[in-house]
Amino acid sequence: MMGVMSDDARTIEWTVDGLRLLDQTVLPHRVEYLTVQDVDALVDAIRRLVVRGAPALGVAGGFGVAIAVRQAARDGWDDARRDAAIARVRAARPTAVNLAAGVDRVLPFVAAGEDAVVAEAQAILDEDVRGNHAIGAFGADWILDRVGDRPLRVLTHCNAGALATAGWGTALGVVRELHGRGRVELVYADETRPLLQGARLTAWELDRAGIPCVVQTDAAAPSTILRGLVDVAVIGADRVAANGDTANKIGSVGVALACATAGIPLVVAAPWSTVDLSVPDGNGVPIEERPAEEVLTWSGARTAPAGVRGFNPAFDVTPARLVTALVTETGVLEVSAGTTPSLGRGTRRAASAVTSRVEGAGGGA
Amino acid sequence: MMGVMSDDARTIEWTVDGLRLLDQTVLPHRVEYLTVQDVDALVDAIRRLVVRGAPALGVAGGFGVAIAVRQAARDGWDDARRDAAIARVRAARPTAVNLAAGVDRVLPFVAAGEDAVVAEAQAILDEDVRGNHAIGAFGADWILDRVGDRPLRVLTHCNAGALATAGWGTALGVVRELHGRGRVELVYADETRPLLQGARLTAWELDRAGIPCVVQTDAAAPSTILRGLVDVAVIGADRVAANGDTANKIGSVGVALACATAGIPLVVAAPWSTVDLSVPDGNGVPIEERPAEEVLTWSGARTAPAGVRGFNPAFDVTPARLVTALVTETGVLEVSAGTTPSLGRGTRRAASAVTSRVEGAGGGA
Repeated sequence: MMGVMSDDARTIEWTVDGLRLLDQTVLPHRVEYLTVQDVDALVDAIRRLVVRGAPALGVAGGFGVAIAVRQAARDGWDDARRDAAIARVRAARPTAVNLAAGVDRVLPFVAAGEDAVVAEAQAILDEDVRGNHAIGAFGADWILDRVGDRPLRVLTHCNAGALATAGWGTALGVVRELHGRGRVELVYADETRPLLQGARLTAWELDRAGIPCVVQTDAAAPSTILRGLVDVAVIGADRVAANGDTANKIGSVGVALACATAGIPLVVAAPWSTVDLSVPDGNGVPIEERPAEEVLTWSGARTAPAGVRGFNPAFDVTPARLVTALVTETGVLEVSAGTTPSLGRGTRRAASAVTSRVEGAGGGA
Repeated sequence: MMGVMSDDARTIEWTVDGLRLLDQTVLPHRVEYLTVQDVDALVDAIRRLVVRGAPALGVAGGFGVAIAVRQAARDGWDDARRDAAIARVRAARPTAVNLAAGVDRVLPFVAAGEDAVVAEAQAILDEDVRGNHAIGAFGADWILDRVGDRPLRVLTHCNAGALATAGWGTALGVVRELHGRGRVELVYADETRPLLQGARLTAWELDRAGIPCVVQTDAAAPSTILRGLVDVAVIGADRVAANGDTANKIGSVGVALACATAGIPLVVAAPWSTVDLSVPDGNGVPIEERPAEEVLTWSGARTAPAGVRGFNPAFDVTPARLVTALVTETGVLEVSAGTTPSLGRGTRRAASAVTSRVEGAGGGA
């Protein structure tokens, strides 16, 4: 059952030729792969969102170091040039902590050579898939316990699915688990402008998994929630600060405000590696501003009048008080109900609050 | 000064040939006009949003009756057929009360013939332009008094401009007035999916008027507000219920939730004809659901996977408690601060609260 999605369309995979990426810029119309063999191509692929999603970027960071090591050996780079290349991979996108964390985790293996780096990067990948199944089980348990053990109407934003991870997904891992238990009535997938990760990627994943879904504009999400059409919202995260403030795809905080007003839970599903205890709160999370053209054009054709400027922040920060539950592979932290000022302390407190251990809940996933 | 915008690009105008509409489906790339000569063509134009915006629809409703009267005379229709045609115009779009109200207002003149109907419809148009200048003046006074008499950062959603009215605009009438007083630093124009009225129409109007603006995704609006980048949000309305609940373009309630959280005012600018005292609250406002293809395709090309469904409500309802001020041509009603349960009573209460009379404030606009 593990990696059902990734069996036939793997998001990211190390091959003898290099790092093989499912090109997410051409989905859902074409399933094409891009095999990356040098650092420049990887940085470009990360920036163009060929590969995207915080957990997948963590894996890409790990394998990115392997590419740099291989390229250094092939092209006769000295250590300084190799390390500069690694630094470029690490900084290719600023908001998700996972990319830098993936790079940092494999750095100690650089001296031991490419094989050692690849092995550690592969460990990140394998742990991600295992962790996502645990997230799915923890999240489904929590939701069915708190919201109701019946077919539910779930809203999600952007894509926190198999395509955003090494497989199975975080937010969509929870949805897949709920679906496996016969507890999904309908998923509202926000289209997620400007790059339509919801309409293109989430809808594609849900459709292939046989999970009923409708695509709506991001602008519709708050209204759909306030009209009582949604039982729970489940989203991913790109970085969670120590106090629980959560950076995620732009539009998430609008969903969060509506959930709080409607009295339904906002569930953030993310691996623990997304939590950055070095950042005290959301003010410390760098928010990537992407090219204005993403907003002002469509398939290369201008939609706004010539000369008009665009503003294109790619992420927003949802205050911790609006995050009902943070589901990680180690359990569920009820953030907004917490009295502890930081996840660092909250984690210890939550050890007794989690519904079950990874091993127990995740084993059957 | 009146109708500056409409001098060179009139949204809606009665001509000897019929009703001349600025085709808003091809803006900003082309300025083209469509002259409507029969009821079928008008209903089609209204449904396709060639003409749109609650106040403009009110004018279209009035002239639509004139078209039906003319067509009845030309084609030898009996009264029943004529009245059925009028009823189709009246029901072409369900959410904005103005369309039906415009039809109803000219109905008593049908027996007197086409010229009498045209004269009354023209009166609706002229009153709309005059009213919009009054709205602009009242709104600007209120905002500078409450928010601060300095260059402001204003957020708006969809298009409540000259293109949504007979001229000058409601929400954008307020912005134009603020700009005329040197009090606009920047306008954030939400792109307004799925049909991009913000990116295409609002940005076009602001650009032509020399008002600095940036286009952002609808999903960005709550975050932009919560980040402290906005001083006041000003939107239009399609129908305001007796208790102040406000139906407007989908996405408005997300803006409203963010404004309330950030502690900045949400100003609704709309002619009094938008207030429907026959509807006690937002639950009584019919919400038009438009074709899913608007969400699932782009310029005719599918963006979501084939087979996936869409959900496309065109409007949402902002609860009265989130509406800081309702600006009409008769003054400003501080809705969320009001203690009266309905605008019907609130209006009388507000008579002493309005900042000035139409004649006083609107004279210099």
